[in-house]
Amino acid sequence: MVLSGPSGAGKGTVCRALLEKQPGIHLSISATTRKPRAGEVDGVNYFFVSREKFQQMVDAGELLEWAEVYGNYYGTPLKAVKDALARGEDVLLEIDVQGGLQVKKKFPSAVLVFLLPPSRAVLVERLTGRGTDSAEEIQRRLHWANTELGFLKRYDYVVINRQVEEAVATLQAIILAEKCRPQRLKIDKSWGNLSDL
Amino acid sequence: MVLSGPSGAGKGTVCRALLEKQPGIHLSISATTRKPRAGEVDGVNYFFVSREKFQQMVDAGELLEWAEVYGNYYGTPLKAVKDALARGEDVLLEIDVQGGLQVKKKFPSAVLVFLLPPSRAVLVERLTGRGTDSAEEIQRRLHWANTELGFLKRYDYVVINRQVEEAVATLQAIILAEKCRPQRLKIDKSWGNLSDL
Repeated sequence: MVLSGPSGAGKGTVCRALLEKQPGIHLSISATTRKPRAGEVDGVNYFFVSREKFQQMVDAGELLEWAEVYGNYYGTPLKAVKDALARGEDVLLEIDVQGGLQVKKKFPSAVLVFLLPPSRAVLVERLTGRGTDSAEEIQRRLHWANTELGFLKRYDYVVINRQVEEAVATLQAIILAEKCRPQRLKIDKSWGNLSDL
Repeated sequence: MVLSGPSGAGKGTVCRALLEKQPGIHLSISATTRKPRAGEVDGVNYFFVSREKFQQMVDAGELLEWAEVYGNYYGTPLKAVKDALARGEDVLLEIDVQGGLQVKKKFPSAVLVFLLPPSRAVLVERLTGRGTDSAEEIQRRLHWANTELGFLKRYDYVVINRQVEEAVATLQAIILAEKCRPQRLKIDKSWGNLSDL
């Protein structure tokens, strides 16, 4: 499952709350060339790497997807995702819309979820209230938010983040529903092989 | 939402439990030419009609879908469905797989759910335990169940009916998830018109 949405949608908070509430989900940690923000820890929030290292990962095919956002590069290490899937875990990627569509192309069974603040006013409020970014950065994020909204209709689901608990419950419903897809379902052997039906 | 599945899957029980648990769902009542079973009430379980009346409804285009099952005809009166949708209600159809696929053809936004007993042994047990049908009828139903299973993969979701409460919770998750589809979602006006995005 891919979770995308504009900065200020509350992706980080919702992801953390979902992981707390529902076990068996592996949260992918992205590699990025951007500088750590205050409090961010290498290997926990992101793998912070140099541009040279990032380029090496791209060249070696080690990234499931990668994209440039505000001049910085972000990418998803493929191996960790494959390992988690092999262990039977659900995998959650918190990545931008460009990356999300790349994942869907490579893994058509990926489920793309767009997290949307309840209104534009709330988005602006959340972006300006964070207090960690410059006015210029906020303007850039607002501009980029509009670009991202343009991808909303290509996503499978849109979850409106009015309240964290409500958004998490909706994500859990989506996960449960998607496990009922015929192509994903494990059924009792007595029914025979689904692909023979 | 269409709920289908072999006789003995527990569609009736699950439907009733879902309607009790979640308000705002309109259960469609089918017209049928089959004779009422003990305890069935006209206008509640089905509209029991003659073959002539049924044919008139077909000819007048009054049925959203209709199909023949075990030599009897079953059909969904279109007007009641349209009226409920116009009132903003969710509509639940408990119909057979042939009818389900007709509905999807006419309304691509319809959500098709296949209710499956946990195993073949449970299906047989439920069919023979009902005590209302002859051995011949049970054999026919088992045979028809195999035919219906062949349509499982063309359904959007498959819900395994291990326990009624669990199946109802899964149906509620599917309903919630499907309301988050971009084409169905109502978003705040401040985001602009979705179709312009």
